[in-house]
Formats: sequence, structure tokens, C-alpha cells
Amino acid sequence: MAIGQDIGCDLPVCFDDLLSAKPLVQAVMAPTPMLQSKALSEVSGAEVWLKLENLNTTGSFKERGACVKLSRLPDGAQKKGVIACSAGNHAQGVAYHAQRLGLSATIVMPEGTPFSKINRTEALGADVRLIGQDFNAAAAAAQEIMEREGRLFIPPFDDPDIIAGQGSCGLEIAEQMPDLDVLLVPIGGGGLISGVALATKTLCPSLQIIGVQVDLFPSMLSALSGRSDLEPRPVIGGQTLAEGIAVKYPGKLTKAMVEVLVDDILLVGEDSIEQALVELLEQQKIVVEGAGAAPLAALLSHPGRFRGKKVGLILSGGNIDSRLLATSLLRGLGRKDRLVNLRVSLEDRPGELGRLTSAVGKVGGNIIEIYHDRMFYDVSVKIAEVDMVVESRDQDHLARILSALRFDGFAPRRLSARGGDGRAA
Amino acid sequence: MAIGQDIGCDLPVCFDDLLSAKPLVQAVMAPTPMLQSKALSEVSGAEVWLKLENLNTTGSFKERGACVKLSRLPDGAQKKGVIACSAGNHAQGVAYHAQRLGLSATIVMPEGTPFSKINRTEALGADVRLIGQDFNAAAAAAQEIMEREGRLFIPPFDDPDIIAGQGSCGLEIAEQMPDLDVLLVPIGGGGLISGVALATKTLCPSLQIIGVQVDLFPSMLSALSGRSDLEPRPVIGGQTLAEGIAVKYPGKLTKAMVEVLVDDILLVGEDSIEQALVELLEQQKIVVEGAGAAPLAALLSHPGRFRGKKVGLILSGGNIDSRLLATSLLRGLGRKDRLVNLRVSLEDRPGELGRLTSAVGKVGGNIIEIYHDRMFYDVSVKIAEVDMVVESRDQDHLARILSALRFDGFAPRRLSARGGDGRAA
Repeated sequence: MAIGQDIGCDLPVCFDDLLSAKPLVQAVMAPTPMLQSKALSEVSGAEVWLKLENLNTTGSFKERGACVKLSRLPDGAQKKGVIACSAGNHAQGVAYHAQRLGLSATIVMPEGTPFSKINRTEALGADVRLIGQDFNAAAAAAQEIMEREGRLFIPPFDDPDIIAGQGSCGLEIAEQMPDLDVLLVPIGGGGLISGVALATKTLCPSLQIIGVQVDLFPSMLSALSGRSDLEPRPVIGGQTLAEGIAVKYPGKLTKAMVEVLVDDILLVGEDSIEQALVELLEQQKIVVEGAGAAPLAALLSHPGRFRGKKVGLILSGGNIDSRLLATSLLRGLGRKDRLVNLRVSLEDRPGELGRLTSAVGKVGGNIIEIYHDRMFYDVSVKIAEVDMVVESRDQDHLARILSALRFDGFAPRRLSARGGDGRAA
Repeated sequence: MAIGQDIGCDLPVCFDDLLSAKPLVQAVMAPTPMLQSKALSEVSGAEVWLKLENLNTTGSFKERGACVKLSRLPDGAQKKGVIACSAGNHAQGVAYHAQRLGLSATIVMPEGTPFSKINRTEALGADVRLIGQDFNAAAAAAQEIMEREGRLFIPPFDDPDIIAGQGSCGLEIAEQMPDLDVLLVPIGGGGLISGVALATKTLCPSLQIIGVQVDLFPSMLSALSGRSDLEPRPVIGGQTLAEGIAVKYPGKLTKAMVEVLVDDILLVGEDSIEQALVELLEQQKIVVEGAGAAPLAALLSHPGRFRGKKVGLILSGGNIDSRLLATSLLRGLGRKDRLVNLRVSLEDRPGELGRLTSAVGKVGGNIIEIYHDRMFYDVSVKIAEVDMVVESRDQDHLARILSALRFDGFAPRRLSARGGDGRAA
């Protein structure tokens, strides 16, 4: 343990803190699996290992930190209960362990929080209150309730117990796969990467730790680039699929730890996150949320950098709304030309629609939706327009379907996913 | 090993056969994880353990048997290659190990096989041929190609090497979770349950093994009920989400093993399979195909039978078409009233649509789709009809949305999922 004490001695959390937190986590949580993905290894050219934090009881790593924090409540706090402000995985982690320990938990979420997150947190016994238009307003309300009711506030990341709890994930990785070359870890507030980097760098000193942020929220990267609060910040914010790491201000403790322990931070875009999410679902049969897909997005966006290396990805969570997941799957099919939106003009006479749909069917295309209208298109009144969603096997098959249509005298145009103007397909 | 030899001595496959197959599997496949699901334990009242066969490289247990069979090809067969007939997981298992061992593999699939299955099998290097309108026609074609090209036929289940390979799953379970009370295993042709039952009954004699079939294909159950080929069979067949276990005729070897080793067979319906699939996705963050969801469907359909017991579920595979998965997710939301299709009549004057949609928004309903038509409904020409897909938080929230609409003078009617006639909501 000498190395650990060396690394940790100047930091807010030391390796010994991880070791003392470990039994609290172990007592109630089984280690999550870490497995090699041959499919993703083939796609990326790296040897890919997945740490499945999405398989935790509340669907993310967040329950590790909550477990340690709530197991160590000061005297008196047991009676008054706890409070947290979170629209996401932290809420579920706190609610789960509060229920387990018989504590009262209040969770404040902003109005407009997706229904599935409210429901899951309530199902874990917490009192959920929807207050404020955004996270800051909700946080202010939580502060007010905390003072009024005397509850203990459970911070989402910037806390030594929380960081020590998240570190248990790193201890497991060091045991399950000690010879990784690189570990890719999502960064929101920085709690997960702080604990994991401390654990793994201590036990596997040659391991490279790379953080991943979504490019709309490069908050830790900005903080580490030396920008002070007085200097202009890059614009941080926007709508992201990775709302789990959409954090505007990283923690102070976590910043100090990331500065020392993390080798690099990569930014990934929305599109690459969505694609990574669909890859994990289709290739690996596991559900991740946007933040959980960020490490794979980083790997696939920088293939040269990781080729031939043993790369671990922490899939931090799997709490994604079912409707969003369904939409991502269908958009993924659109991206691969497996679903395509075609517009075809028909002469307005009986039998034409049958001729068109037969032409698609003959070459194995599958018509999923069809919409036939003759009122609102910008064409002669003697022409009808048909919009079809067609399922094809792949790009080659789509090309065959389009050729077959042209051969039968149709002129299919392809519509964008959003159904905009047609362009010749 | 005395117990194993006792059990196996009269059967087509003995415990010693499992032990000699084991190293062939272990050399190339990591054990799949077996983990406790607290969420599903809570829902079912049993202590639920999941064996994640969907995390195998080709997404199902089938590669276990293919691994053993292809590793033991007779002399000469290496050169001529192998052939299989399968539209599903067996195809991928054979293709994967053939590629790994440098063998040529031809896979015959019926025409109309879903694109994703064709693509995945081709991506594993197999020569896929689409022949015949159904499985029988494809099988006849495979027979013909086998004879013409001298390839070795790799049967899907009724083969000692295949059964011994699938048994490796049972050996892992006996090691990972030796004190299970019950193990629920899907049955198609019977290869998986034969190998698994032999392994687990030998090592854990008090374990109860229960097979699960989809009620449209109760073929093993019928075979074991003593019906001979001369007697009338129950009608077997139909469209099922669990096409992986939609097998009309079980194997002879497997029937002999199931007869001795399996304690009971349960049948599950389509609806319970679809619900189980969505539960696994939403609660456990893992993707299963219909057959893989069947054990959970059986558990949830017979809660009293399993309450308080330690129940293992083999989630046999995760190869499901993305479009089907997206549809299942959305139908799941419909089932819980999280998505609902409403029809509302409006007076045909400016501002009414705004008043309607505002009424939905004010109480937190989210309009996903809206369709406004005044031509084709069976109402006065002065009335317009609006169809809306509205997202709600749950049934209570939906009731609040409907009350708010009525309070503002609208009379919402609920449409069925298929958009049929409205009934008062």
C-alpha cells in the first residue's frame, strides 16, 4: 500500500480512505462484471473491456458513493433524514440506500424532469419534490428545505465519502483486469473519475486514465486549463443525450484529484454518443444512458490512439428513458440506411399505388409506413405524392430497391429523417 | 463424480461428456456473468438470479455447442467445410467458430429472414444462402447442398457434442450459484436444457429444473405427454416473438434427456414474453430476445409457485431486431398508460387547437404526435377531429390530464393502440 499512500498524501482523498470505504460497499453490493467485448474490439481495433456499472441495482455507479456517505451519517442525522438535489442517478442512489438504512430521504428535482426518473426515485421510497425551472432553482429550494427541516445534504460528487465510494469501482477494475493499458471514464462533476483514478493508479501505476466529457459541457477540461472565474469561460450548456455528465461546475476536491491523477480529457459530440449507445445495445446487448456511452464514443472517435491497446470503458449507467431509447434505435437504423423515407410521385389513376408497393416488395423491401396525400403537395393536381418508410437490409439493398423502382418508371426521392424536402435518391 | 455417472449412464450424453467438452469451451469463451437482480426480486417475490447468456460474443448460448462440435470435426471435414440451416442464433454460433477455426461455413436461411440476422451471420464470414419459403424448405435445400458439396451438417440441437457444449452453461451455474432452488430454462429443440440439466442435477442434486416453452410451440411438452406421431397433435405453430424456441419437433436425444432430468415444463403466452422483455430492458438494462425473456415470463406468470425461492433464469440470447425492440418499448409505454392515443372533437374555428394543446401542457402532459383532419371522420363538417399521442407520467397523471381536458370543455376519447374506434376515455 506504499504506492497508494504516496499518491494520495497531498490529495483530498487518500488510498487508505478507499480501503476503509470498501467494506461498506462490499457488504451490500456485488462487484459489477467486467468483460471483454469481441464485437467492439473488432470494430475499434483495440482490445475492449467493459465495466458494467449499468448493472448496479439502481442502474448506475452512483449508489457506491451514496452507500458510503449514508453509512457514515453523523449522530442525530439518522432521525432528521437526508436531502439531495438531483434529476438523475444520484437521486436513485441516495433513495436506495436511505430506504435500505431506514432513513427518510427528500429529493428535489427541477420541474420537467422526465417521468421515468421521478417514478424510479419514488419507487425507492423517497419523497420527490418538483421545484424550480432549472437545476439551480431546484438546488436553492433544496438548500431552503435542508435548513428548515434540519436534513443532512448529500452532495452528488464533491465530498470525500462520495469519492471514496466511487473508488470501489476502481478497486474492482484493478482486481478484475489489472493489465489494462488505458481506462476511459466519463466526467461530470468528477466524483467517479477521482475515486477510480486513485484506486487504479495506485494499484496499476502504468495505467493511463483518460476522462471523457461531452463537448457541450467541457467543464472539467476548462477548469483545468487554468481559466479562473474572472476570465471568460467557453460557452457551457445545451441539450445533450448525456445529461448524466452535463455538469456546469466541477467540484473543488474532484478538480484537485483529476489534476494530479488523470492523464488526459477527451471531448465527444452528440452524434458519436448516440451511435455508441446504439452499438452497445445492438452489439453487446446492454442498455446504457448517454453518459455511459461516452467512453465508447471517445474510443470510436480516436481509433488510431487506442489501436492494439487493452482499453477499459466504464459504462457508468443505464438509466435512459424508454421513449428516448426507442427513438435512438430507429434513428440508428436510419443512419445505416436500414430505414429510409422515400417520396414518389404517382399519376392519379387506379392501380398505381399497387404497382409501386409491389415494386418495393419484389426486391425484398419492407414497407413500414405509407402516407398518400393529394392535397398539400406542390405538384399538379393530376399527380399524387406517396411518402413511404421502407426497411432495407443495408445500403446495397437500398440501392437495389431504388433501381427496381426506377426500372418500373418511378422517380423516388429521399427525404431527410425529419421529413424535409425530397432530394433525388 | 459418482453422482454424475449415475445420472448419465443410461442417457445419450453423460456427465463425463460434459467434462471432456468443458476445456474446449473454456479455451475460447469466458464464463458469462450470473448476477442477482434486486429489482426483479422485488417485483416477483423470489430471489432472482440471471445467467446472462446474451452477453456471449454472438449474443446467445448457441456458440457453446457449436464450439464443441466444430472443434471435433472428423478428418477430412476440415477441408470441405460445414453447413447449417438456421435463421437464428445457431447460424451465428456456427459461423463464429468456423471463422475462428478457419473452416468454410455455408448457412441456409429461409427467404424473408430478418435482415439483421442475415447481416450478422455474413459479418462472421459465413456464406449465407436464402432458399425456400419456410424452414422445412430451407432444411431440404441444406441437405441437398450438403450432399453435393460434401460439407458436414451441423445440427442445431439433437447431437451429443452440441448438448455437451450447451452443458458448459450448466457447469458455470453450478459453480457460480450452487444453492439455487429452481432453474428456469427455455426449451426449443431441447439442447440447452438437456446439457444444463445434466450438469446442474449432477452437481446440485436438489435443484429443480423447469423448462419454459411458448404456448404456440409446446412441442417438447406434447412429446413428453406420450403423444405418438399417429395420434392427433395439438396445433403447434404461429407468429411468436420467441422465434428462438419456435420449434415444431424436439430432438430424440434431447427428449430422452428432458424426460429423465427435467421436473416440469411451463408454457408462457406472447404478452407475458413481451412484458418480460421490456422489464429486463428497463429494470435490468439488458437486451434479450423473446426466447431469452421466456423464463422471466414464466416466473412472473406463476408468482406463488416461486415466492421466497432462489430462482435462476437463463437469459438465453439477446439477438432481437432493433425495430422490433423499439416497437416493444413503445408498446410497453402504452401498456402502462405512459403513452396514450386520444381523439378529441373540436369546433372548427381558429384558436381551438391552441386551447386544446395548452390544456394538455398545463398539467404536464407531453404531446408526442398530433394529427388534425377534417375530411374523413364521421362527424359534422363543422367539427374537426384531432388525434394526439400524449405522454403521461403514469395512470394517475393520465387521469389528471383527462380531467383537465374535460374541465376545459373537451371530451377526449381513448383510441386503442392500433388506432381503432374511440371509446370515452
